[in-house]
Formats: sequence, C-alpha cells, structure tokens
Amino acid sequence: MKILIIGAAGMLGAKLAARLCQDGHIGGGEITHLCLADIAAPAASPDAPFAVAAIATDFSLAGQAERLIDNRPDVIFHLAAIVSGEAETDLEKGYRINLDGTRSLFDAIRTAGDDYRPRVVFASSLAVFGAPFPDTIPDDFHLTPLTSYGTQKAMCELLLADYTRRGFLDGIGLRLPTIVVRPGRPNKAASGFFSGIIREPLNGEEAVLPVSDDVLHWMASPRAAVGYFAHAAGLPPEACAAARNITLPGLAVTVAEQIETLRKIGGTGRVNLIRREKDPLVEKIVSGWPRRFDPKTALGLGFQPDATFEAIVRAYIEDEQIQV
Amino acid sequence: MKILIIGAAGMLGAKLAARLCQDGHIGGGEITHLCLADIAAPAASPDAPFAVAAIATDFSLAGQAERLIDNRPDVIFHLAAIVSGEAETDLEKGYRINLDGTRSLFDAIRTAGDDYRPRVVFASSLAVFGAPFPDTIPDDFHLTPLTSYGTQKAMCELLLADYTRRGFLDGIGLRLPTIVVRPGRPNKAASGFFSGIIREPLNGEEAVLPVSDDVLHWMASPRAAVGYFAHAAGLPPEACAAARNITLPGLAVTVAEQIETLRKIGGTGRVNLIRREKDPLVEKIVSGWPRRFDPKTALGLGFQPDATFEAIVRAYIEDEQIQV
Repeated sequence: MKILIIGAAGMLGAKLAARLCQDGHIGGGEITHLCLADIAAPAASPDAPFAVAAIATDFSLAGQAERLIDNRPDVIFHLAAIVSGEAETDLEKGYRINLDGTRSLFDAIRTAGDDYRPRVVFASSLAVFGAPFPDTIPDDFHLTPLTSYGTQKAMCELLLADYTRRGFLDGIGLRLPTIVVRPGRPNKAASGFFSGIIREPLNGEEAVLPVSDDVLHWMASPRAAVGYFAHAAGLPPEACAAARNITLPGLAVTVAEQIETLRKIGGTGRVNLIRREKDPLVEKIVSGWPRRFDPKTALGLGFQPDATFEAIVRAYIEDEQIQV
Repeated sequence: MKILIIGAAGMLGAKLAARLCQDGHIGGGEITHLCLADIAAPAASPDAPFAVAAIATDFSLAGQAERLIDNRPDVIFHLAAIVSGEAETDLEKGYRINLDGTRSLFDAIRTAGDDYRPRVVFASSLAVFGAPFPDTIPDDFHLTPLTSYGTQKAMCELLLADYTRRGFLDGIGLRLPTIVVRPGRPNKAASGFFSGIIREPLNGEEAVLPVSDDVLHWMASPRAAVGYFAHAAGLPPEACAAARNITLPGLAVTVAEQIETLRKIGGTGRVNLIRREKDPLVEKIVSGWPRRFDPKTALGLGFQPDATFEAIVRAYIEDEQIQV
C-alpha cells in the first residue's frame, strides 16, 4: 500500500507520518511506501519499516500534482493549506493554494487513467460553518463560511463530493476540531490561547488569556486528529456513501475546565502563570466560532474522540515528553 | 445606469433584456446603456429608449471578462451557464464555463480598480440542494448537490458570498424554481414535461406525461423569474446582508393541478392531448428533486411569486400571444 501525505511538514502531517511509520499499516493494508510532500522537503522518518521519500513541491504549480501521484499512491492525505489568517490577508495566494492546488490534485487523479481511484483524505475545517449557530450544531448545518479560508475549504468539499460521485476518486473530507494542545511556540492564531494556557504554564512560562473563563470551544488533541486521518484512510468506500464531508468528534470544553485540569495535573503554581488580559478583538473573533457539535455521522463511522480534557493534556505531556 | 446581461441569448436573458427595455429603469435608477453578451451575439432590442450593444464572447477565455466590464456596468446579470445535462456529460466544459467563467468575471471585477463594486445578480439553481429532502425545505437547508452542475453553482454561490464580504462586489445569488411554461419547442430536459403538458396542448399538439399525476414540483413563470432578476438588481445592499444566496418563491403544484388548470383554460379537448406514458428514468430523476420550499428570506425581501398556477398559464398565453 503506497501512501502520500501532502502538507507533511506541518504539525499534523509530521505526526501522521510518524504514526504511519509506527503502525506499518492502514486498515487491513500493509504500508510499502510513504511519500512526504510539502513546500519545503519534510524530514523523512529514518526508522520506518518501509521506504520513505520526501519531496519539496508547490502542488498548485502546473505538472506538480501529476508528479506527486506518479507512483499511484493508494491513499492520499491532503493537509496542505494556506492558513486562515494568511488566506484573509493574501486573497490570491489563498485561492491559488487552497482551491486551485486542491483542484489540480483532484484533476491529476481524474486524468491519470488506468482506473486509478485512490482514497483521498482531505483536511477540511469547521471554518466552512459561519455564525449564527445553534447551541449544538448538527451534521447537516448549512455552509456559510465567514472567511476566505472557510470558503475555499467549502468549495473543495463540494468538489471532493462531486468527483467522488463521478467515480474519479474516493474522497473523505474531515472537519477537524481546534487542535489543543498544539506543541511548539505560541503562534498568532486567534485560537492560540486555547493551547497556550496549558502549554506555556506546563513549560514554566507565562500565558495570556484574552477571553473570559466561560468561553466554550470544540477541541481535539493532535493524537486524536492523527487517529481521525488514519481511521478515515481505512474506512471501506461504502461506509462513506452517506456523507463525504464529515464533522469530526471533539470535546466541548470551557476555559474554566481547561484551567481546573491544569491545576489538577500541574498544580496551582502553574495556574498562576495564566495572566488574564482581555483582548476585545480576540473576544469578538471567538464569539463567532462554533462551540459544540453533534457529530452523529462520524461517531457512527467509528471516529474516536479524546475521552476527557485531562486525557488531552496527558497526551500532550506524553507525546511531547514534557517534564511535569 | 449601465447594465450588462451575460447569457442574454437564453430564454430568460432575452426576456430580461426586453423587460429592462420596457421599464427603462432598475429600482430608482434610469437605465442609460444595456450590453447583451452571449456565446453568440444576442439580438439587440431595436425599440429601447437607450443604447443597446450586443457582444459575442466566451467569458471564460482570458481577457473576455475584462472586456465585458470595460465600461464599468453598475448592474451585471450573470445568467451564462452550461446546463445540467451537458455539465454532466462534459465535465471539463461544465467546470470551465460554470465555475471558471464565473470566477473570471468576479476576478475581473475585483481587479478593476477605481473602487468599482457593481451589483452582480447571479443565476444559481435549486440544484445546489440534494436529496433526501424534508417535505418543506427551509432557507438554511444544507448544500449537497447531486450533479456537477449543482456543485458548480454551489461553489459559485460561496465565491459570490466571499467576494461580497470582502467588498469586491455586491452580489446576490438567486435559486430559481423550475420555469413553467417555457416557450418554444420541447427540449430534452427531464423537467421538460412540466411545461410540455401545458404548452403542447395549448398549441394543439400531443404532449407526453412520463410521471404520475400526484408529482409535486416547485415552479415559477418566466415572467416571475424576470421580475426576480429585476427586483434583485434594485435591492439596497444592506437588505441583502443576511443572505447573499437566496431561494426564490415559487408555487408547489401537482401535475393533477396543472392538468385541471389546462382543462379550465383550454377545455377537455386539450387535456385529451396529454398522453400518459410512464418513463421510469424520468420518474427516478424527478423523485430526487425538491418539491416545496419555505422561502422566508426572499418573501421578506419582497420577491413576488406568481399568484396561482392559473396565473402562470395565463402569463404564458399573454406573453407568447397564444390563441386559445
């Protein structure tokens, strides 16, 4: 079984590659080859039990998608994207990578010939949804994205569903929860503090909390997210017939619950590293985000969420080898 | 006020042009220039009280969209499309015209400079929706198109909403009901019989009815449809803020009601020209179509549906000068 990960240098892409190298299989199929692609060549895992190739490419450029599928991978994980903020500031780049790049990939598959019809697992986003929201959002909530990034993801979801219906590929789009706890340094994403108020105190650093403690948000650990990708890759085609673009399970967690979990695991000293400093802009952005979903379809398909927010934090400590 | 109609050689485009020539204004604005564009040059209305230009162009080709907006029309009606059947048989042509052509137009507007921000009235379709449906479909029903045509229209709706949000244009997408009674000769569209069972008998010809009398369908007259376009063009921008892509009002009419209306207007002799001949393929296609909507948003914005199915038939007789 040949696997391609596009966007393999990103946080989730790299963790997915590591997981596949560890597992050695997807569903019932043994992995024989893994190709890691990104705009800069990803680090190839040295201890994989199969051949691993790394390719640096911009898949939105002519001929590059064809090059990526040259060895006809059986499963393609497509995680490459210009993130939300940049897609908003650089409109043309966002549409070029997030829409045209994805379409180039799908069209390369469509025109490959030889009845080539890979499983394509596409990283979509909850940004396909836009406020106003009900308290709990059902699987069939309408698509009214309020960002260019969300628009591009929604357009790709539609394309994926149409190309799957036409028999060109076997696609599944995954709308991931916000990933918490993201490892690494703080970033400028408006959602960054959901990770920061856990990560920085656990690393002995101060974290800023720009919203009130009663803010509720939909989260999953990087470990759960990687599990979602692997699970989607192994689902039988007929299982996905009812819905090709799927809202994934997560946990609806308040900031207060996050802080109490930090206290339980790290002690009050760590909690005291959280500095409350309201940011009206962040508060406004966060107030427009969805808070809780009822992901019946995904649960029915066996996607496994994190058990508790404590499990999310413990997964972070374990996976990132944090000393607490 | 300068007006551009793209797709002006089609049935609705031509009727819209005639209506604008007759009205002389849109909303409160006087029309000073009308440009009619299509793949073949549309006939220019000779009796217009303003200058009318006709252009033959494929707006999906490089530079053509820029050419169309060269005189900076204040209102652009975009009705150009590859129809459902052809978009299904010729995938690349459907995406090129219906998606790329629309995007070329929107991008030409975006990059025109000079704070150019026209009202763009886009002909979308109920094909953005896919079965299964509730009995009555709400405005916020999710987008799960089951054809490439519907996929392309849904992608363009998303693009229109994003470009409007970003301030590049002032767009409104209109999801039209099935147009009944279509003038002219029978066509091969699966929905053609909804018009045929009225039109052919009124013209003394036999019509085939391929479905049972209890089939319910969502209809509007060409006159109402043209009225929708003109109304959308004149709406103040702030009125459309809540929803940029709008399901339009129509009448939910059964085939039996259609036939009784024909009897009332044309007599039993005309009804006897309807030959019942079930077509399982057409029955299957029609069973997957939406039947009834609750178009609250459009009604709130003042879009005026036909009063009754009898009014639809009488509009056909009047507009097409049929002798009954």
